This record gives sequence, structure tokens and C-alpha cells, in this order.
Amino acid sequence: MSTTQHDVDNAGNLARRQHGLDVLARIDGDAGTAVVDSLADVSPALSHHVAAFAFGDIYDRPGLDARSRQLVTIGVLTALGGCEPQLRIHVGAALNVGLSRDEIVEAILHCAVYAGFPRALNATFAAKGVFDARRPQPTSPAP
Amino acid sequence: MSTTQHDVDNAGNLARRQHGLDVLARIDGDAGTAVVDSLADVSPALSHHVAAFAFGDIYDRPGLDARSRQLVTIGVLTALGGCEPQLRIHVGAALNVGLSRDEIVEAILHCAVYAGFPRALNATFAAKGVFDARRPQPTSPAP
Amino acid sequence: MSTTQHDVDNAGNLARRQHGLDVLARIDGDAGTAVVDSLADVSPALSHHVAAFAFGDIYDRPGLDARSRQLVTIGVLTALGGCEPQLRIHVGAALNVGLSRDEIVEAILHCAVYAGFPRALNATFAAKGVFDARRPQPTSPAP
Amino acid sequence: MSTTQHDVDNAGNLARRQHGLDVLARIDGDAGTAVVDSLADVSPALSHHVAAFAFGDIYDRPGLDARSRQLVTIGVLTALGGCEPQLRIHVGAALNVGLSRDEIVEAILHCAVYAGFPRALNATFAAKGVFDARRPQPTSPAP
Amino acid sequence: MSTTQHDVDNAGNLARRQHGLDVLARIDGDAGTAVVDSLADVSPALSHHVAAFAFGDIYDRPGLDARSRQLVTIGVLTALGGCEPQLRIHVGAALNVGLSRDEIVEAILHCAVYAGFPRALNATFAAKGVFDARRPQPTSPAP
Amino acid sequence: MSTTQHDVDNAGNLARRQHGLDVLARIDGDAGTAVVDSLADVSPALSHHVAAFAFGDIYDRPGLDARSRQLVTIGVLTALGGCEPQLRIHVGAALNVGLSRDEIVEAILHCAVYAGFPRALNATFAAKGVFDARRPQPTSPAP
Repeated sequence: MSTTQHDVDNAGNLARRQHGLDVLARIDGDAGTAVVDSLADVSPALSHHVAAFAFGDIYDRPGLDARSRQLVTIGVLTALGGCEPQLRIHVGAALNVGLSRDEIVEAILHCAVYAGFPRALNATFAAKGVFDARRPQPTSPAP
Repeated sequence: MSTTQHDVDNAGNLARRQHGLDVLARIDGDAGTAVVDSLADVSPALSHHVAAFAFGDIYDRPGLDARSRQLVTIGVLTALGGCEPQLRIHVGAALNVGLSRDEIVEAILHCAVYAGFPRALNATFAAKGVFDARRPQPTSPAP
Repeated sequence: MSTTQHDVDNAGNLARRQHGLDVLARIDGDAGTAVVDSLADVSPALSHHVAAFAFGDIYDRPGLDARSRQLVTIGVLTALGGCEPQLRIHVGAALNVGLSRDEIVEAILHCAVYAGFPRALNATFAAKGVFDARRPQPTSPAP
Repeated sequence: MSTTQHDVDNAGNLARRQHGLDVLARIDGDAGTAVVDSLADVSPALSHHVAAFAFGDIYDRPGLDARSRQLVTIGVLTALGGCEPQLRIHVGAALNVGLSRDEIVEAILHCAVYAGFPRALNATFAAKGVFDARRPQPTSPAP
Repeated sequence: MSTTQHDVDNAGNLARRQHGLDVLARIDGDAGTAVVDSLADVSPALSHHVAAFAFGDIYDRPGLDARSRQLVTIGVLTALGGCEPQLRIHVGAALNVGLSRDEIVEAILHCAVYAGFPRALNATFAAKGVFDARRPQPTSPAP
Repeated sequence: MSTTQHDVDNAGNLARRQHGLDVLARIDGDAGTAVVDSLADVSPALSHHVAAFAFGDIYDRPGLDARSRQLVTIGVLTALGGCEPQLRIHVGAALNVGLSRDEIVEAILHCAVYAGFPRALNATFAAKGVFDARRPQPTSPAP
């Protein structure tokens, strides 16, 4: 096994990766796929493991729904700091799995208590960038 | 206002604090109250702001339910590291607001992707400590 | 109380926020006000709490002068990393409350011991940006 | 695939895990195995992924020898802070793969430049604990 | 120079280290000296550089007084997290250079805004430990 | 000694700095020298200590070769996050001291296990920027 496990293109790894790519496309849309693709040249192994492990093995596990996973992810990425590119993708993913804009900014405000205001400010501005790019969002339907 | 705003015992601040203490007792139980009490001697102002701001102003805001807030909090505390005392309290709070043990460990596993395995290991052991202290939890009812 | 405490526009919260905005304008000048304003659209609650809590409740407390608070803040923001936008505002604030350029870069050099050189380098370059934007500062008076 | 990928006991995952456990035993010895075992009760999935992913998929990849991986790991764990349990295991692993005590403390000293002295102090004391537990190491042979 | 610069016992380095040890003893007292001594066995080079560089080269530089340096240090150490041993030494140092207990806890409360409440809680409890060990401190003089 | 140790232009400090500048030029090339030069105006003391301490005192110590030091450095900088400018310089340095592109990306992939995928992604993209700027690197010689 040890000789083949690290061949990211063996049958088992290909299947794990393909499943992860499907999850990634479903959750993050084109933004997530673009990250994996942009890694393929410089670090094909990292590209593989983002898809196969992060999204294939973990993200899609039963036991925690996608909405809950995005709340956890927003907490982690806000706290880490310096992960604005990843945060933007996951704010988009949060919208995709059904969290509202108000819930996302509320979750980030909640982080201010635990990770401090600067981290919450940076995350809120990252979220704002995602929201602005998806406008218009009618807050009240025209009559 | 500036002369009275910092009097943590003025009427407005007392009301904010009392509300926060109620939220804290409801969510975290005795463990949370014990933290606030233990601060009262060394830093009464920090004790006040944990209650009045963190729990009174933020935690109880509408717009995000307690379950969601605990998921965000677990994400932040796992990512920060070195916050095992706070994590233990919030794992207890997560149980109190309805997250199952399996959901909590799943949320922490999810953090491993974003914050790395050492942080997830430390958080899992902190959770295990809380679970063990609350045993027994029958995983399948006797017939 | 719980039904009204989270109304950021109730009388008590308005007064706390107004006081905070006054402190913010006095310490940080237009740069601080601009941050609060830029949040008002995407996260009015975060905008409120930055003003009401961070500046109204905490920054203006007696017991530690503004100069001391800026020294602590420079230490925290340098250590956190990834907070260059906040660091620039607080370097400006440090100048406003009477710290000299030399004291600010000395404080950041001091951080190198505890948070490492990369954090100190990033903070120094952030400070340099603020200094450059405020030039000219004559280092020796013309005869 | 999605229905079976998350079954950590399917044939592919069992093989990945077994390979990882072999790597773990070879590199970290009993200390590593003990960590995986201690997780099996509270979070069997985390236990699986530490073995299958961290050690099976990543640690044993060709392209970087074990000595180099331990140097990177010491850098990461020293910088993260709060990971003393993991650091102790990896200091032991570093000794196991051929790094000398002097090289390990030199690597941690090197970290002081980038992560600051407190992190380097904590890591050095963690290393000291491992060294002391493995004594005696004659520093000069008796004549 | 390159052949001798790394000899921590050459005349120049001995002088730098001795000066640093004097600063360390003056600021931190026995607690600081104990740390340097405890490193001498496992990492004599780290022991040297803590004294020669951190205290000799940096701490005692003109341009920022000891009180200001301790405020910066408290900010950094509170923000880093996981540095409670260092924080305890520097809380002691802060008392030694003239900061009052109230100023120290106020500085840590200030950190809560920027680094979050858990870091501030941990730092406050570390400070409390130092205060308790130095008791009694009469808060109001006997008549 | 205390009156002269902080004169960064005394004979001993000049020699330490010159040695450090030589190490810096040898390891990091123009990119490292440019950083030291860019600091000379805003913080001459930080500029001195980067050269004299980080490169002169530490980097060139015997006991760990340059390749090993770059592996540790990549681990620390990837874990810290927000240090992309420093990481780019040290990826360049890693190439200069003989690490291959594949080894560098493998080291960063290894970090994903311990510091999480977002940090590894940011570091990989920083490395990619350095690689791209040094192209072309023929991966297979023309016949």
C-alpha cells in the first residue's frame, strides 16, 4: 500500500478526489474550483488533498449539515486572520448553503467577542466584498 | 455621559450586566458564573464586561440562535489555541443548547482542515474532559 | 431588558455610541470615523459596538491614559498580524495622543523580541506609511 | 462513492489507516500510537484521519525525507504555540529519525527570530522534558 | 568576524550578555534570572541571546522607558496566548518598574477589545497569580 | 557597557552588522538587502538588528546547515500567516541554498497537516509567485 498510496492518481485517490470536486462545486461553486485549478500547476499534491481530503473526506461527512459547517468555518477563518481569500470563498459558500447575509455578519460580530474587533472588522469587510459582487439583492420585493 | 458611562454600577450598566448574567447562567450554567465571580476581585471591570457586553449585548442578540453561536464559538476557540478553559465552558454550553456530543466532535474535526490537527486534537481532548465529567450518557437505552 | 438591550438605537445605547464616537473622533480622527461609517451599511451592529463598546466603554475609561493605551494597542496589533489596516489607524492615533515617531518605531522594535521579526517588519512598514502620509515633519528646524 | 467514502472502515480507508499507523509507529513510536488510541473513544473519525491522512497520506510521501519533515514540523509547532503535547511527540520523532539534541535546540533557537522568544522558550522547555525522559545521554564518553 | 561572532563567550558577547543579565535582574528580579539559568543546560545559546539580545540590546535601549516597554510587552504576550509563564514574569516586572495592579489589569482589559475576551481572561488570571503571590498589598492604609 | 551597547555604530556592532549583511546577501540576495535598506530610514535600529542579530548572530551559527534553517523558516512563516513578504524572500533563499521547487512545495504541503489548509494555500501561492518570477526552469531538457 505504501508504494501506491501516494500516487494521487490511483483508482482510490481518483475516486476520493472526484467526489471532493463534486462537493466543492456544489458548495463553493466556481470560486472553489478555481482555487483547486490554480494549484494544479505549482502543487498538484496540495490540489489533490484540498479536493480529496478537505472536501471529499471531511466536508461531506454526515453528522453535521452544510450550514453548521459554514458557521464553524467562518469562526475558524475569522479567528486565524490573514485568510481573507479563503473567507471570501466560504462566505460565498455560506450564502450557497442557505445562510442569509444577516446571519453571516451576525456570526462575524459574534467572533469579535472571542477573537477581538480587528479580526471581526477584516472578516466583515471580506463578507461585504462578496455581498457587493452578488448585488442586487432586493431586500423587499417590488409591489 | 462620559463621566458616568464608565461607572459599571450605574443603572444602565447594572441592567445590561444583570441581563448578561441571566444569559450566562442559562447558557453556560455554573461554569460560566464561576468565571465571572472569580474575576470580580482582580478585575471587576473585566467581570462586568464579560457579563454585560459578551453575554448581554452580543450572545443574546436575535438573528442567530444559540446553537449556531456555539458552532461559531467552537470554531474560534479551536483556532485560537491556548483557550482550553474557555473551550471547556463552551463545550458544556453547546451541550446545554442542544448540540450532541457527536456534533461537537464533528465540528472540531471540521476545524482540523482549517486550523490544523494539533488545534483539533487539543480541542477534542478538552471536549472529552467535559463529556467524561457529565457521564454516564447511555448511548443506547437498555431494553 | 432583554427585548430592548439589543436595540442599538434605544436611548442608553445611543448615548453610549455617541460618547464612543466622540472618543473615536478625538483619538483617531477621520480615519477612525471612516471605519465606523464604512461598516454602517453591511453590519450596523458591529459599527455600533466598535463605537459604543470599544471606544465608549473601554478606551475612555479612567485608570490608563491614552498614551499607555496606544502602547498596549501597538503591542497587540503587531503580535496579531494581519491587522495592518487597524495598525495604521492606531499609529495615527498614537501620534495624535503624543507619542513621537521614534517612540512608535521603538515600541515596534520591542515587539520583535516577543512576536518575532516578521511581525515587527510588517508593523514598521505600516507605521512608515502613516508617517509618509503626514510629511513633512522637519527633523531639525530651519535656522 | 459519497455513501462509502465516509465509512472509515471500508477497504480503502482501512488500508490507508493501517499504512498511516505503520508510519506513525515507525516515526513517533509509542507516544504517537497512544495519541491515536486515546482519540478512538471520543472521536474515532479524528483518530482515523490523524493516521490515514496526516501520517499515511502526507508524512510518508516521497519528495522530502523524514529529517526534513521534522524540521518543518518543529518550525510550525513552535510558531503555533499551545501545542506542547504535539511538540513533545515530534521532538521524540526528531530524535528517532536522526536529528541530534543539539540540532533540535538549534532549530528552536532559529525560530526565536521569526516567532519571538516566548514561543522559543516554551518549545525549548518542551524539548528539555523529552531529553530528560530519555537520559542518560553521555555527552562525552568515559575514558 | 564570522568565525568568532558565534562564540557566545568571546569578549564582546560576554559584555553584551553581562549587561543584559544586569538589566534582567533589575527589571524581572529572580524570576527572570531563573529562566536564563534553567536554559543554560539545554540551550546555552538561547540562554545567551535572551540575556544579550532581548535584555541587553533591546530592553535597555534609550527612547522608551521601562514602564512603556512593559505596557507593550503585556499587549504582545496577551495577544500571543499560550505565554502565561512569560506573562507572569512580565507582570512582576511591570510591578517592579512602577505600574500599579490597577493599571496592569486595565491594560489587559484594553487587550480584550483587540485580542478577544479569552486571551484577556487568561492574562488576567496570570496577573492574579502574581498579585496573590506578592500579598498582602493594603488597598487602604490603616488609620 | 550600557552606555555604548545601544550605539549600533560602535565597533562591535558594526562588525556584527557587517557580518550579518554578508550572510543576508549570500542567502537572500538582493531581496534581503532591499528589506534592510528600506528600513534604514524609518527604523535604523530594526534595520541593524535584522542584520546583526537575525542574520549575523543566528542564521550563520554552526550546528544547522542553511538548507535545514530554510525548512524551519518555511514552517514558521507558513504557520504564522500574514508574513507573505517574508515568505517570498525565504522561498527565494531556499532556492538559493539548494532546495528544489518540489521540496519547497512539499514542505508547505506538510504544513497543511499542522497549520491547516488556508495557511498552506497562502504559502503555496507566495512560492508560486517566486517561482514564476524566476522562470524559465526547464523541467525536462530539450533533446
